[in-house]
Amino acid sequence: MSDRRDILRGIGAGLAIGLGSTASARALAREKGRKLGYAVVGLGYYATQQIMPQFKNCEFAKLTALVSGTPEKLTRYGAEYGIPRTHWYDYQSYDRMRDNPDIDIVYVVLPNGLHAEYTIRAARAGKHVMCEKPMATSSDECRAMIAACKAANRKLMIGYRSRFEPYNRLAIDLARSGHVGPTREIVAAHGFPIAPDQWRLDRELSGGGSMMDIGIYSLNAARYLTGEEPTYVSASESTDRSDPRFREVEDRVNWEMAFPSGILASCVSSYSSAHNRYRVTGTKGWIDMEPATSYAGQAMRINRDGTTAPRVLPTPEKNQFTAQLDHLAQCVLTGDTPLVSGEEGLRDLLCIEAIYASAREGRRMEVAAV
Amino acid sequence: MSDRRDILRGIGAGLAIGLGSTASARALAREKGRKLGYAVVGLGYYATQQIMPQFKNCEFAKLTALVSGTPEKLTRYGAEYGIPRTHWYDYQSYDRMRDNPDIDIVYVVLPNGLHAEYTIRAARAGKHVMCEKPMATSSDECRAMIAACKAANRKLMIGYRSRFEPYNRLAIDLARSGHVGPTREIVAAHGFPIAPDQWRLDRELSGGGSMMDIGIYSLNAARYLTGEEPTYVSASESTDRSDPRFREVEDRVNWEMAFPSGILASCVSSYSSAHNRYRVTGTKGWIDMEPATSYAGQAMRINRDGTTAPRVLPTPEKNQFTAQLDHLAQCVLTGDTPLVSGEEGLRDLLCIEAIYASAREGRRMEVAAV
Repeated sequence: MSDRRDILRGIGAGLAIGLGSTASARALAREKGRKLGYAVVGLGYYATQQIMPQFKNCEFAKLTALVSGTPEKLTRYGAEYGIPRTHWYDYQSYDRMRDNPDIDIVYVVLPNGLHAEYTIRAARAGKHVMCEKPMATSSDECRAMIAACKAANRKLMIGYRSRFEPYNRLAIDLARSGHVGPTREIVAAHGFPIAPDQWRLDRELSGGGSMMDIGIYSLNAARYLTGEEPTYVSASESTDRSDPRFREVEDRVNWEMAFPSGILASCVSSYSSAHNRYRVTGTKGWIDMEPATSYAGQAMRINRDGTTAPRVLPTPEKNQFTAQLDHLAQCVLTGDTPLVSGEEGLRDLLCIEAIYASAREGRRMEVAAV
Repeated sequence: MSDRRDILRGIGAGLAIGLGSTASARALAREKGRKLGYAVVGLGYYATQQIMPQFKNCEFAKLTALVSGTPEKLTRYGAEYGIPRTHWYDYQSYDRMRDNPDIDIVYVVLPNGLHAEYTIRAARAGKHVMCEKPMATSSDECRAMIAACKAANRKLMIGYRSRFEPYNRLAIDLARSGHVGPTREIVAAHGFPIAPDQWRLDRELSGGGSMMDIGIYSLNAARYLTGEEPTYVSASESTDRSDPRFREVEDRVNWEMAFPSGILASCVSSYSSAHNRYRVTGTKGWIDMEPATSYAGQAMRINRDGTTAPRVLPTPEKNQFTAQLDHLAQCVLTGDTPLVSGEEGLRDLLCIEAIYASAREGRRMEVAAV
């Protein structure tokens, strides 16, 4: 199957993701050996346990600075990653990153409610920005972030790591190329039973419940698997407000999306049950991923012509975290637009706003245009 | 696990399904060796290839009469099953079944649009009725059928065979008993790419598209797995009206249902893609069935405490078809109410009407009360 070989070749080659042009490849070749410096902002679990350990495998990126409000974290991770005290910042000294030429890119890994402020301040300090998803807590914030980066002539990318994960990339290509016939249905479910007492349950910091967190994987998957923007959404919420975890934010949201080509998607987002899967069903079979968007261990099965078989890919040279970090560095070096730009983050927020409105009002909602 | 043993014991015993009381068991013991006579109405694929071959395995039921508008079918199946010409009927002579004491039960396997008429005529002819699902094409028809059977003091059962299938029975028990924690989410998908030129695509005969056919499996499963009635539904339809199959009826309907305990269900019904599965997710794991409601070959996996394992049941003494045929005969003999009565069929129709209305009007719809 030539489609699979092409995709594997693309995944295997370090430069292939989102950098198609010959000019880009040449620009990158000239920069060979150069690594751009990242400042990681917010030293929580995801930053310290998932992202920071990946820099050692990067081709174009290195960790050069740390930002935290907790001095002990700066001391600890500064020592662990050999980051000198001159490259430690807190949220007061944040804007002084402007004067540090070792920092090219700022990676915002803060609670959602702080994404906009620290993205805008980073852009104004002359830095390119990688921002975790959800991009922000409202589409207005997203627009302000895009505008700030544009005004500063800095790149903005959102941390949708699945777009750099080989199985998800293969699923996208197979689904869009009609490997199981034209797609008719997508079912996507993401959730986990959330532990109490954390920022995700604080509305001001999170902007919402499961839908602003794990649910975005179902939403984004439905969009990247179709390559289309939903025309409308229809949503239902269920939250036990007597559960102390859900005093401020919602537990579960299920929603449908209709796409222009006629595809329907049914999605689940949950903070009280575990889900990590999607299935794309076409007229001739289906592509199933479970787990679909985990940190590792993706598993794919394909049903075609009445037969179901697992599809196993070789381990890629770069995992999804490394590829994502390198991608933005490569885009900075070449001038290319990131595969997952601020507009992509904005599109998800527009959908989320429509989903919340639909669940609240009990009626179908159109998704606002970018 | 005592719950499993109890269920298996129940499934193994011929009398266990829906016949709990000692009085019923005694009544049945007195009738041992007696088989009630069924007339099968409508000699299409499902009747002739799935139902009629099962009578030979029944304990309390036998095939004694045939109804068809096609003389060749009466000749052919009359010979195959040893049914004498005196026990052949067409739709004109149908009511004369009244005078045939060899017929106790009439099994209506006609297109949906004919269920009401032939159920009511059977009851008026003094016969008990098994009617295929969907019970009818409207809740009004369902009420008329229930009333006619009640007036004639005859039993009415709807052919929801999955309620007699061991894996589905186990799934119901595990889900309702909290084996994977209280249920939070149900995802159920049923569909198949429909062949052109058949009664299912003729609105007058079918009453609708996939939702009036394969979709009812998703709906009924969500209801039997929860044991609750939905408080509201929210639905979306997608149909390519340029496809000659879908001139009169819909292709796909996706819908959500909210249940009183807070459970949400996301369901898929399709006439253009293949689906046959459901998953019940609780706070501690999930129960997955795929295929879920097929004629045979059900497969169950259970995830609990982070481990996923298949669950394999022994082959039952009676398969779902045989158990279903025997069940109504047993109820007639004992006076018990069928496990899946006319009210159960009516409840599904009330949901379907709300689903269609929701898809049409683009807003959440409450489900009308029985």
